[in-house]
Amino acid sequence: MNRNDIRIGLFGFGVVGQGLHTVLERTPGLRARIGRIGVKDRTKARNLPAELFTFDRDEVLDDPTLNVIVELIDDADEAYRIVTGALRRGKAVVTANKKMLAEHLQELIELQRETNTPLLYEAAACASLPVIRNLEEYYDTDLLEAVEGIINGSTNYILTAMHRDALTFAAALRKAQELGFAESNPALDVEGLDARNKLVLLLAHAFGLVARPEDILAVGITGISDLASSYAREKGLVLKLVAEARRLPNGGVAAAVLPTLVRPEHELARVQDEYNGLITQSNFADRQFFLGKGAGAVPTASAVLSDLSALTYGYRYEYKKLHQESTLALTPTDAEADVLVTFGAEHAPDRADFSAIHEYFHSQELGYYLTGTIGLDQLAQAAWLRLPGISIVRLPTPLRAVTTAPASETGPVVRAAWATDEAVSPL
Amino acid sequence: MNRNDIRIGLFGFGVVGQGLHTVLERTPGLRARIGRIGVKDRTKARNLPAELFTFDRDEVLDDPTLNVIVELIDDADEAYRIVTGALRRGKAVVTANKKMLAEHLQELIELQRETNTPLLYEAAACASLPVIRNLEEYYDTDLLEAVEGIINGSTNYILTAMHRDALTFAAALRKAQELGFAESNPALDVEGLDARNKLVLLLAHAFGLVARPEDILAVGITGISDLASSYAREKGLVLKLVAEARRLPNGGVAAAVLPTLVRPEHELARVQDEYNGLITQSNFADRQFFLGKGAGAVPTASAVLSDLSALTYGYRYEYKKLHQESTLALTPTDAEADVLVTFGAEHAPDRADFSAIHEYFHSQELGYYLTGTIGLDQLAQAAWLRLPGISIVRLPTPLRAVTTAPASETGPVVRAAWATDEAVSPL
Repeated sequence: MNRNDIRIGLFGFGVVGQGLHTVLERTPGLRARIGRIGVKDRTKARNLPAELFTFDRDEVLDDPTLNVIVELIDDADEAYRIVTGALRRGKAVVTANKKMLAEHLQELIELQRETNTPLLYEAAACASLPVIRNLEEYYDTDLLEAVEGIINGSTNYILTAMHRDALTFAAALRKAQELGFAESNPALDVEGLDARNKLVLLLAHAFGLVARPEDILAVGITGISDLASSYAREKGLVLKLVAEARRLPNGGVAAAVLPTLVRPEHELARVQDEYNGLITQSNFADRQFFLGKGAGAVPTASAVLSDLSALTYGYRYEYKKLHQESTLALTPTDAEADVLVTFGAEHAPDRADFSAIHEYFHSQELGYYLTGTIGLDQLAQAAWLRLPGISIVRLPTPLRAVTTAPASETGPVVRAAWATDEAVSPL
Repeated sequence: MNRNDIRIGLFGFGVVGQGLHTVLERTPGLRARIGRIGVKDRTKARNLPAELFTFDRDEVLDDPTLNVIVELIDDADEAYRIVTGALRRGKAVVTANKKMLAEHLQELIELQRETNTPLLYEAAACASLPVIRNLEEYYDTDLLEAVEGIINGSTNYILTAMHRDALTFAAALRKAQELGFAESNPALDVEGLDARNKLVLLLAHAFGLVARPEDILAVGITGISDLASSYAREKGLVLKLVAEARRLPNGGVAAAVLPTLVRPEHELARVQDEYNGLITQSNFADRQFFLGKGAGAVPTASAVLSDLSALTYGYRYEYKKLHQESTLALTPTDAEADVLVTFGAEHAPDRADFSAIHEYFHSQELGYYLTGTIGLDQLAQAAWLRLPGISIVRLPTPLRAVTTAPASETGPVVRAAWATDEAVSPL
């Protein structure tokens, strides 16, 4: 299908959809226009002629005058039906729906091959920052060791507002929603699930590893305690929600989304507001850092636009690394992290889950904390992590292969003979 | 010509050439190998079989078994002969020679069209950082307002070593040369000419503007005075060599390479050692920042490798913006900058060149300085700038269109009735 002239069937006319309409009007160079818009809500007033809109999905998908489908709706299940329906009809698709993509990635890769039809989704990770295409194209000859980043603009906006402007979590979240940075279901953001979905996409393009979201540990920022905040302040560390995927020496990959204390000189410490930042570590190019707006209608729409432009010259993801290294897999049992766990008098973490305890602290006023080393798998399965009053943040050391030697970066190791009953009693 | 299997005719076997050989050996995924190496020095011992090497350019260019020429020599004139000779023979070319590219860019763009043969040069700007391809592909639908960056790793290494490690200029330069970061002719680096050559490439891919290097003002770092360093320290500013190109409201573009004082919170202030950093400012994607190694054999070779990989799937630069906006031109007469000029008792800057003088200072021990606003064209033509003892650095304000209102960012304006004879006498 010739895509020199793009006639778009657009699904969804929320902030990003309207943003796309705006940027298309300001981009005369790209010969693309919106031919039809599929929407759900029959009552909403819209600022475009009524005949552009339809409530019937198939009316858009079956329209032979439309050659590209742009899917910008919230509902991941409906998005899946739209995207697969479009690909099966040989219509190229651009989508920003990371939840839908992460949940069906393997199938969508196969469907692109079967139908010989491209599906692009630069806007699904880091909005305007060209991370997917760079991982796919530019690093295809370089061996990536790690990708690590702040890839959810909403939580970063919230954490920045809490830290810099001393807002409460609730007030910061409300502000993020007002500015259009938050998902309509904020739980996706604040529980780290949106970042996890994006990490699934990064894993595919960075390492050729197609993971299921549920196989990746994700801890959000809702449970961050005052004690954890005090700890960060005292040590001069900055709290960020960090997604990380790292090759392990044994050939596996460790991946997690965790609230993380980062050192002030670390690139990610300076990622503010709704910005996203991604660090790549590779054999030849070494360490690289990309910073840009990770949320917002216009930056997200600009990534959609860039995908539309790429379609005009026949671009598609080749998923090259999927074929290069078919043996890479997530190996959480081989990976560990250093963490700070804060808790109250009622519930304590299970000491047996930790391979080392480094510090233990109790204050009558603030409660308890411990720092220690724990396997990624142990952490994922720890029932205590879901008990009220317990929360964790990662300390500023990378994910790493399980070692017997304790980490040196978190201070002297206090291999205290610390029993669970001691933990819940004041020191 | 089918480039699924790449057989390379390599010119030059210095640090980058040897780096390329190294990374090719470690990249089994890419089906590329070096078939022949053209070198100049007949006496040098080499660590590869002698039959690989030849001293005859045409023996490589005319070899029908080689389908890609990789040009990594120092001599820009010979590089030009190699690159044009290869293109005319229909052999794709990858080069890192920014001097040759900048001096012949218009012709090389035309030659690519005429011969229908690609010339790629990602390694020529910011080494491993994928700036050319991102400017070319990703932002082709977005209106770039400015690119601004540290694009010479050698001078950044020198400035970092002088600032952080308190090395002298000479010692820092020697160290940069030992580490292979400096051009073999260090004047290209320290006089800002290498950065200017790279800026020519960025201008072409960011704005579709093919400029001649000599049309862009470049001031290097050799003349930086102790007084300028003291000024920077006192104000908490960091000295960097910054290349900048910025659209002006009247439709022109201002471009210059200038030693620049940047605020500590600015992204470029944190670009250390041989790293390069580039900021793009665009209408939709807004502000983005890219950080990565800008010098060194392996990072540069990795960019060459990425270009080789791109050739295997038929990639070539389209120079899309060249056709989109043919009217963009450099307009130095419309642009101005805020600068700090330091000088001694012998020579002073010509007050008449400045549209405003903001501050004037004299110390018996350190000499004189003034801060003021000056047109880019006045600065380029100022004969006093080349007098001994006079040096300039840009203050931390962007290049901008000439205004009648003075800049407010550089403190209160002292529109002193300051005559040249006053300038050379102690206050």
